[in-house]
This record gives sequence, C-alpha cells and structure tokens, in this order.
Amino acid sequence: MRVIEAVPNVSEGRRGEVLEEARRALLSVEGLHLLDVHSDPDHNRAVLTLVATRDDVLLSGLLRLIEVAVTRIDLRRHAGVHPRVGAVDVVPFVPLGTATMAECVALAETFGRETAARFDLPVYLYGHAARAPHRFRHDVIRRGGFEKLARKMEDSLWAPDFGPLRPHPTAGAVVAGARSPLVAYNVNLASIDLAAAGAIAREIRESDGGLPCVRAMGVFLAARGLAQVSTNLVDYTRTPPLAVFERVREEAARRGIEILESEIVGLVPQAALPGNPSAVLRLPHFSSAQVLECRIQEALGLRRFP
Amino acid sequence: MRVIEAVPNVSEGRRGEVLEEARRALLSVEGLHLLDVHSDPDHNRAVLTLVATRDDVLLSGLLRLIEVAVTRIDLRRHAGVHPRVGAVDVVPFVPLGTATMAECVALAETFGRETAARFDLPVYLYGHAARAPHRFRHDVIRRGGFEKLARKMEDSLWAPDFGPLRPHPTAGAVVAGARSPLVAYNVNLASIDLAAAGAIAREIRESDGGLPCVRAMGVFLAARGLAQVSTNLVDYTRTPPLAVFERVREEAARRGIEILESEIVGLVPQAALPGNPSAVLRLPHFSSAQVLECRIQEALGLRRFP
Repeated sequence: MRVIEAVPNVSEGRRGEVLEEARRALLSVEGLHLLDVHSDPDHNRAVLTLVATRDDVLLSGLLRLIEVAVTRIDLRRHAGVHPRVGAVDVVPFVPLGTATMAECVALAETFGRETAARFDLPVYLYGHAARAPHRFRHDVIRRGGFEKLARKMEDSLWAPDFGPLRPHPTAGAVVAGARSPLVAYNVNLASIDLAAAGAIAREIRESDGGLPCVRAMGVFLAARGLAQVSTNLVDYTRTPPLAVFERVREEAARRGIEILESEIVGLVPQAALPGNPSAVLRLPHFSSAQVLECRIQEALGLRRFP
Repeated sequence: MRVIEAVPNVSEGRRGEVLEEARRALLSVEGLHLLDVHSDPDHNRAVLTLVATRDDVLLSGLLRLIEVAVTRIDLRRHAGVHPRVGAVDVVPFVPLGTATMAECVALAETFGRETAARFDLPVYLYGHAARAPHRFRHDVIRRGGFEKLARKMEDSLWAPDFGPLRPHPTAGAVVAGARSPLVAYNVNLASIDLAAAGAIAREIRESDGGLPCVRAMGVFLAARGLAQVSTNLVDYTRTPPLAVFERVREEAARRGIEILESEIVGLVPQAALPGNPSAVLRLPHFSSAQVLECRIQEALGLRRFP
C-alpha cells in the first residue's frame, strides 16, 4: 500500500489550546490520519505525525495546519531551547509502503508553492527535494534561527525556493523536503550540567567525528530541571537508538553522570528498536500486528493499553 | 480498562471453510473482538484470540463458536500432531488491564455450566479454576486424547466438573479455565529428525529438569517437511522466547542441527519479546502505540503494514 507520511514540526509546545486547534483542523480532513502529537514545553515545539494514502488529502491538512500556526504563533514572542526559523518550522515528507522518494519530492514542491502563494511565506526545499547541495540539511538552512533570518536572506545563497525574499514578520519561513524515516531520540541525563550535555553531543555527532548519521545537541530542560542530549538519527540502520544510548552512557560515565531515561519523539519504525524480534528469534512472519497490546489498542480504539 | 481475553483452541487447522464459519459466528457478536486466528495443518488446530470488555459478550461468542465446532468437527475422523480431547479443546480466560483472575475463574465456571447444558458436553475446569490439584494442568487432563477419553472418564478421578459422565460422541470434552497470559512458541529445525526434536523438547521442558515454566514436545510437520519443538511458555517473565530459542539452538547444535526459524502462535505480550525497548533504553513512556507500523495498521485498518 502507498502511504505518505508528513511530520510537521510546529513552534508551539506550551499552549495546549493552540495544539488543540491544530489537531481539530487536521481531524476535519477526511482521510487524513493524525497518528501522534508530541509536544515539549522546554523545546517549545510539537512534532505531529500525519499519514494519508492520497497526496491532496495530506496537502489539504498541512495547509490548514499552517493557517492555524500563522494565525496563532508569533515568533517574535517565542522562546525555546530548540532552534527554529518558522511557526511551522520543518515539514518532511516520507515515503512508506510502496510510495517513492520521487513522489515525496514532487509533493514537497507542490506544498512549498501553495504555502508561499497562500500565506506569503518563504519556503526552502531540503533533503531529497533540495535544489542545491548546501540546502540538503534543514539544520543548515535553519542556522541563525528566526532572529537572524532577515539578514541571512539578504545573501542570494539563501534566497527561498518559493515565496518572498524576506521572512514572514511573525511566522518566519518553512523548510519543506523529502527524506527517509528518521528517529528523533533524546537522552536525559541525571544532571543539570548543560556543558556536559553539550560536550557529549559533540562526542557522538557525525559532524564532529562521532557516530554515523547522528545529529546531536545539548539542551537544558528547565521544566524538568535536567540536561538533555537531543538527537536526530537520520539513518537508524547505521546508528540505531541503542548505539546512541550506549555511547551517551559511556561519555556521561566518564564525567561521573548517569542516564536518567531516554525518549523517542513521535513514532519509531519497529526495525529501529533494539532486539528486533524478527531478527533475534528468526521470526519471518512476525509483525507488530502480533503484539497483544497493539491489537487491543486497535480493537478498542485506545491510545494505549494497559 | 477491564479486558478479558479468551483463547479457544479448536481442533481444525485444515478446512478453511470451517474456520471461516467460526469467524463469521464470532464477528456477528456486537462488542466482541476477534484479534487473531492462527491455524496449522499439521497440528490440525486453530488458536483464536478474542477480547471483550463485557463477560456476557465473550460468553455469547464462545457459545456460538462451540456450536460451529460441534456441528462441523468430528474427532473420530480428526488427525493431527497436537494432542486434543475436544472439538473445542481448551478455552482459557485471561485477565488483562484491571480484570482479575477471580473474575476469570467465575467466567470459566459460567462458561462450563452453559456449555455442558446446551451441548451435552463434559467440561473440565483447569488452571486457577481447577477444583482439584491434579486438574491444574490442561495437558494432564487431556492426556490420552479423545481416543482414550471414554475409558479415562470411567475413573471417578476424571469425572467432569460439568456435563455428562461420558464424552460427546464427536466433540469429546472441553477443558476450560483461567490463567495468566502465556506464549505459544514453536522452533522449527532445519531437519526432519523427529527423534532429535523430541530429545530437545525433553532437555528444555520443566517437567524433565529443563527451563522453568516451559512445556515442550517434538512434532513432525509433514506439510513443511521438518521437525518442530513446540512449546508453551506458561510464565514468560521466568523463561521468555529468547531463552527457549537459545537453549534449543544449543541442543540442536550438539546434534549437528540448525534452527530454521521460530514462530509465535497467536499474539504475544510486548514484554515477552527480546530487547524490550522500555527496559533496554530506559523509556518510561514507551508503548507499542509509538511503533509506526502499529499505528498505520490501526489508522488504515490493515492486518499488517508494510
């Protein structure tokens, strides 16, 4: 079956009523499935996971989401530990099932064109949809944040792919693209030592010679009173969450710090989880459809069971 | 939430039309959820997984299932490698969520009384519903099979808890009870050596000094042309599938035999799977509701994805 996933990251992780409005806007679209909303007050950001089998359905939902975000979010008054450049900051399209990356690239382009036209928002294309090598990574496009975006856009190197040559005054810009599934994975330290979290992030991230396909930063979560190593695993077949967990544990231990817990942001492919039952037990026919709790959730329409 | 699971084992694993009739009978009961049907032609047996939040709904479905089985299955003409004493052979009730074992015991008793009255079937109570210590294990009650049941019932030690003092001529008897979740787990050898499978089963099973809480037997699967170690893990917190897999692998290797694959019959609790992500990654909030494939299956009403 052809399924397209979109994982819009929205710059709102505190005001429940805004997220509720976004949820209602998405639920009003027939055929669109909102699988998950993960918000964090310190990041002041929410990650929404949407799937649909039809492109127009997904587009329609995303445009409604942008409308809510543009109306309700003002980046001039937004603070959070996570970098961001837009009210709807990043919109990746991910091919699942029989969907192809080329279809996701086309969808990102259509989405970018529509978004720019309707909301007067500059849109950058990234990932497999990028039109220049320096735009492959969305974190590079985003560097400097909303606060430095107007200045950055004066350089023709950073002209948007669609829309005006200046940021939207309150909603900034949107970075849209196509990519493979990734795992957003955070490790919380049993410590308030932000400097240690930053040093561990540098040890483990690919750009500083660490683990392949890992992006990482150290942040402080004031609401929880702890330091976090926040990561993106852009190819979990190369570096799965367990490898990050173990490497962070080693680096933390060298600094006399323990891991409190970890966290998967949004959803995670079964194959990214440790001890993949299919592999370890040679179960050729196993799927999560055989997990009792999963089936009960489905049958009874529960968010989680027990 | 209070959920009761029933896992009736029916002595039919070959005639798809009979299983389809059973499925339709169950689906006609409002509020009853048929989560899984696992059938095997060599075992000539099907394991059905049902859940409901209401006892009367579950009872109603099971009585319809028995009606189909009594009408369509004739044990005088039934052959298979799995021991059985009834057309509906075993009916365990399992408390999930906030349900209690005492509730399942009461349900097994009501089910037994109704079944005996309506179908003139002898019913034995086992597990937590057993009324005598020698009836705790259903495999002990079943020993000798349908063929020796009439003789066995002449002994007052084996008088049924409900129903007539002789087997039903074509449907035998029903063994009903209450138990904790178990895992039915089979390991297929890359070999046709039934004697080796039997020897490995004796090595690993608790009754012969093997792994705790493991029941095991060796069987030959003619349809697949291989020998199987077929097990029940009656407490997977003591011995999970991975421990059985590894022990079978060792014992098989000593005999120059490799494992082809393994198989979970029906559904399995998340916690029984190897590398439980919650434990390994210290994910306090993780559930299968975070597994992407699981959520897509649910949203799109698919049996499996991709």
